[in-house]
Amino acid sequence: MEHRSKILDCTIRDGGLVNNWDFSVEFVQDLYNGLSAAGVEYMEIGYKNSPKLLNATEPNAWRFLDDNFLKEIIPEKKFTKLSALVDIGRVDPNDILPREQSVLDMIRVACYIREVDKGLELVQMFHDLGYETSLNIMALSSVPEHQLIEAFEMVKESPVDVVYIVDSFGSLDPADIEHQVKKFQAMIPNKQLGIHTHNNMQLAFANTLTAMRNGVTFLDSSVYGMGRAAGNCHTELLVSHIQKPSYEIKPVLGLIEKHMLEMRQKWEWGYIIPYMISGVLNEHPRVAMAYRDSADRDKFVDFYDKVTSPEANLAPASK
Amino acid sequence: MEHRSKILDCTIRDGGLVNNWDFSVEFVQDLYNGLSAAGVEYMEIGYKNSPKLLNATEPNAWRFLDDNFLKEIIPEKKFTKLSALVDIGRVDPNDILPREQSVLDMIRVACYIREVDKGLELVQMFHDLGYETSLNIMALSSVPEHQLIEAFEMVKESPVDVVYIVDSFGSLDPADIEHQVKKFQAMIPNKQLGIHTHNNMQLAFANTLTAMRNGVTFLDSSVYGMGRAAGNCHTELLVSHIQKPSYEIKPVLGLIEKHMLEMRQKWEWGYIIPYMISGVLNEHPRVAMAYRDSADRDKFVDFYDKVTSPEANLAPASK
Repeated sequence: MEHRSKILDCTIRDGGLVNNWDFSVEFVQDLYNGLSAAGVEYMEIGYKNSPKLLNATEPNAWRFLDDNFLKEIIPEKKFTKLSALVDIGRVDPNDILPREQSVLDMIRVACYIREVDKGLELVQMFHDLGYETSLNIMALSSVPEHQLIEAFEMVKESPVDVVYIVDSFGSLDPADIEHQVKKFQAMIPNKQLGIHTHNNMQLAFANTLTAMRNGVTFLDSSVYGMGRAAGNCHTELLVSHIQKPSYEIKPVLGLIEKHMLEMRQKWEWGYIIPYMISGVLNEHPRVAMAYRDSADRDKFVDFYDKVTSPEANLAPASK
Repeated sequence: MEHRSKILDCTIRDGGLVNNWDFSVEFVQDLYNGLSAAGVEYMEIGYKNSPKLLNATEPNAWRFLDDNFLKEIIPEKKFTKLSALVDIGRVDPNDILPREQSVLDMIRVACYIREVDKGLELVQMFHDLGYETSLNIMALSSVPEHQLIEAFEMVKESPVDVVYIVDSFGSLDPADIEHQVKKFQAMIPNKQLGIHTHNNMQLAFANTLTAMRNGVTFLDSSVYGMGRAAGNCHTELLVSHIQKPSYEIKPVLGLIEKHMLEMRQKWEWGYIIPYMISGVLNEHPRVAMAYRDSADRDKFVDFYDKVTSPEANLAPASK
């Protein structure tokens, strides 16, 4: 399986959820060049949501990707393809150029299970514009079986290239992942699968390896794990562990050395006890993130009592 | 399998390799009480090697365990049993009391594959004194198959209770662990198995879960992962993930909150790039540990070049 797999690095997109996309142009260029030298197949350079639809008052280059800006900062494409993520209801179809006029190669659509129909409408549009597409179904660990079956009836008929298994809460272990992959394969045998993990229980890398060994081809990761809350599977681990002659670890080590240590000092992500607890409890990390921003950030027993008390109300289905 | 498994916490013993066993009596007592409240079955309270045989010039309470001292600081045993580790050629048999006169319940013998005969002599002696025993074969990832077969012929005939699979270099992944467990089970079907992992590639917890699901019963870990270099599987992850009603996470969270954050500030262990590299390369972490003590500690590309250059000579079989 290993030679068929592809790494999709989400450092900018998922990492932006940590620092409000406060990445310099130099960093994004270094990342693109480094990932290309490392043989990483895809880099997700941000969200392509609409500032208007989100009532944004500040510019945010990596949250509201603009094709002209992208062409300026990446005047020449190298090995790595570029992708962008969009959210249902937050993307303006008029913002999307035909692929041949864009620096982007792939557009990925994130949605919850109840919005799969809307997600597939977007997929169809991006597909017709020439893009590779994926559908990323979030919060999978909370999706009832019958909803998945209904959704997959629609997915099967869609032109979507890749369907992602997304462990949004970092609550799945390798046995769970294997179970999900087999379910997805049985229900949508005509689709490539992808995996997006979170590291709440230090299982992001192991879960990604398990998915790969069971036939999943698109592997999401980020350099030094940078991503919301506990972060993601680490790109450097995939590049060094997967037996593919085109992968080179040194350019990724160079990125970590030059940028990531300092960024980790400035912004927090990774294995941190409240995120471990939210993963164990299969909860969105939002409560844990708020706790980490408070004076009580290191009161782990209090946090555990709070989130497990009968009054706790922690898992609304919305973002 | 889960209900049969037992956690053996190595915080003091393996963590002592990080801080030269600079643990206060208060910390060790808190750890013992916390692990007992958490339902952790065993705590390894240190090494029972001989200061004379090691020509030690300084006292070191947790490296050279003394039964009288242990009785003073743990006057009353609670739920958790106590174990100690010994090394071949470093333990003086005259230092070992019969079990009924000791606070210790288990003595574990660490050895390399070529010393298994000597290891089993010690095991026999400790067994005859009434202790539970284990044989921990180190550096397993470098052991040739035929040596393992020869060693296991002796192990089969020994009274040893538990034989450990030790991933000394943190170089194994879950597929490797499954392979090793099945090999051990086929060769020594009459023995319980144990697993001791290192977290170089963020696989310590996943490897431990894989071992457990394949029938391994003794699971080594340490609180917040404290152990040499990349550290071990985290006790808090095992206690929160294993489905065993007797496990309680809160006492372990209390230990992390009260002690481990501060200790992690003072001493270094965990997922750190040079340790990741030594794991990937299946090398002892000693070169990486020396590098982390130098001014070049964060020059990851240089480190990689150094350890992969044709002149590098990194893996002598000795400790």
